[in-house]
Amino acid sequence: MAADIAEQPGGFARLLDDAHLSAIAQVAAEVAARKPRNVMFVGRGTSDHAALYGAYLTEIRLGLPVASASPSAITLYGARPDFSSTLVIGVSQSGGSPDLAGVLNAARESGGLTLAITNNPGSPLARAAELAIDVAAGHERAVAATKTYTAELLALLLLIEGVRAGDGRLPDDERAALDKLPQLAEDALADPAADELAQRYRFASRMVTTGRGYAYPTAREAALKLMETSYLPALAFSGADLLHGPLAMADPDVPVLAVVGDGPGGQAMRDVVGRLAERRADVVTIGADDIEGAAGRLPVPAVADERYSALLDILPLQKLALALALARGEDPDSPRGLKKVTTTL
Amino acid sequence: MAADIAEQPGGFARLLDDAHLSAIAQVAAEVAARKPRNVMFVGRGTSDHAALYGAYLTEIRLGLPVASASPSAITLYGARPDFSSTLVIGVSQSGGSPDLAGVLNAARESGGLTLAITNNPGSPLARAAELAIDVAAGHERAVAATKTYTAELLALLLLIEGVRAGDGRLPDDERAALDKLPQLAEDALADPAADELAQRYRFASRMVTTGRGYAYPTAREAALKLMETSYLPALAFSGADLLHGPLAMADPDVPVLAVVGDGPGGQAMRDVVGRLAERRADVVTIGADDIEGAAGRLPVPAVADERYSALLDILPLQKLALALALARGEDPDSPRGLKKVTTTL
Repeated sequence: MAADIAEQPGGFARLLDDAHLSAIAQVAAEVAARKPRNVMFVGRGTSDHAALYGAYLTEIRLGLPVASASPSAITLYGARPDFSSTLVIGVSQSGGSPDLAGVLNAARESGGLTLAITNNPGSPLARAAELAIDVAAGHERAVAATKTYTAELLALLLLIEGVRAGDGRLPDDERAALDKLPQLAEDALADPAADELAQRYRFASRMVTTGRGYAYPTAREAALKLMETSYLPALAFSGADLLHGPLAMADPDVPVLAVVGDGPGGQAMRDVVGRLAERRADVVTIGADDIEGAAGRLPVPAVADERYSALLDILPLQKLALALALARGEDPDSPRGLKKVTTTL
Repeated sequence: MAADIAEQPGGFARLLDDAHLSAIAQVAAEVAARKPRNVMFVGRGTSDHAALYGAYLTEIRLGLPVASASPSAITLYGARPDFSSTLVIGVSQSGGSPDLAGVLNAARESGGLTLAITNNPGSPLARAAELAIDVAAGHERAVAATKTYTAELLALLLLIEGVRAGDGRLPDDERAALDKLPQLAEDALADPAADELAQRYRFASRMVTTGRGYAYPTAREAALKLMETSYLPALAFSGADLLHGPLAMADPDVPVLAVVGDGPGGQAMRDVVGRLAERRADVVTIGADDIEGAAGRLPVPAVADERYSALLDILPLQKLALALALARGEDPDSPRGLKKVTTTL
């Protein structure tokens, strides 16, 4: 897992080389030419969190509504929604889960445009789709997905910015911002704060993660990593939902990890951190700035736009999940009860 | 909270009387006449779980894709997706949260058809919407929503079956099945198993809830009730997502509440219960039949179709949340840190 985590800056650089950029640009141009009226994402687990990031990008950057069919409506209940003006994007590390391929097949039959984003171009999901993007993250050794997650995020960002551009080619300022990502990821991973924080959480019996907007997928994914590797029950909430009920659970015994960046989502989170501090919750933020009411911070480099932050904020959280598993005497490389490819119908 | 819970059979009967049925049928007929190409739901907390039930109904019973915009994309990031062929349904007990009214206003400006489902017909959300349904649950005393949740579920069911019928009027067999609901709800609430189970969970430090399809909203809502009233960290997963990662967390110390009905969702859950049993998890099911691998069951009456089960399965789980809060010495009527109307931007 440590090796997978460390490969992420290199994974960003690989996906940003000319060959991969050009392959994604071709897909993006094809999508733009087909003018979908809405976009639906399907994914499970970690890839569903990447899909959630894609959903925010789609709404905010493309102004298209995001449809979010539950695979079970289609695969278990036989629902056949009309997908004729929909782009259906399946996101999966392995591309091997039959329910996702089932959704893409159903979408294709009803005239939808289908796209697979996977780390396995020969997978059933990639074969079921009309278009495919290979996230090229290389073989992932650990069961807990890390480098395939950030590769999926970057592939989605490149795709959606390419669709926004129309011809798939990124504007110069976008390209310049993206070219900084590998170094920023190196910097984020070099910081030792996550390892120190793991000691602090050694005896925690549960955890809450929270974020809003582009940072909400990060909160969800951080919670999943903590559960997979440390078996720690970690509850992820959007900052808004947290105030509708789960806030009652917050007390000094429940550590809260709050992703607080510097865009609209991060600004809205400042109020959430304040409300948590009123309840004397132990809040550690993830971001570039110290936040009032927080007890500590996992630093990540500042970025030009909040949409880039999702690619960096997760890095210290992956390190935290790994360090915490080790501190608690668990084996993060083979979590009990899990397989690398999960088959659900 | 006990009084609110007990009023639910009466709430079903009220919403099924001629006046309320006819009001909802008019809204349904108007929706059907406008022929939306897709449906988007917005809600927070408990109402978001009702909206999730509405999403399954929309996909399965109407064959329409469900869009699921994040309010923050619109209210924080200024996204303005094209809603011109979308029915946007805001679900909210109080109708008072500005972010939901903001989404409905944005949808209306771009030509979307907007509908508010609330327990407060004079609320900002109801005023922002072109169409409105009053769930008529009466004043809810407890902070933790119970009777407004099931009233929202039934209103959504009546709406969507009315749209499916075209003229808003329910087919005779649907009407006959619905007319049995108040008595079935009485029967579900009369069963003492939830109170007994509360003793068993007195010292649990966390809990997992799970379900698939129509039962997934029940799992989510049960987890929220447990968190709101007992401050117990409860993690809700779709049965499919549970196998993708969180299964690692399952061990004999983590009680699992699994909603296992008798339709396609419930059949798929049988395999999940088996996998949990292999990991020696302590599984209690909610449903009409004993399930292999489970240690116990909260009984609910059998129903003619799985889509009705969501209105009944939650009842013993609400009772469990209440009884567990009392057993743990908490005050379920005023959870710490929560207000009845939560304002998020």
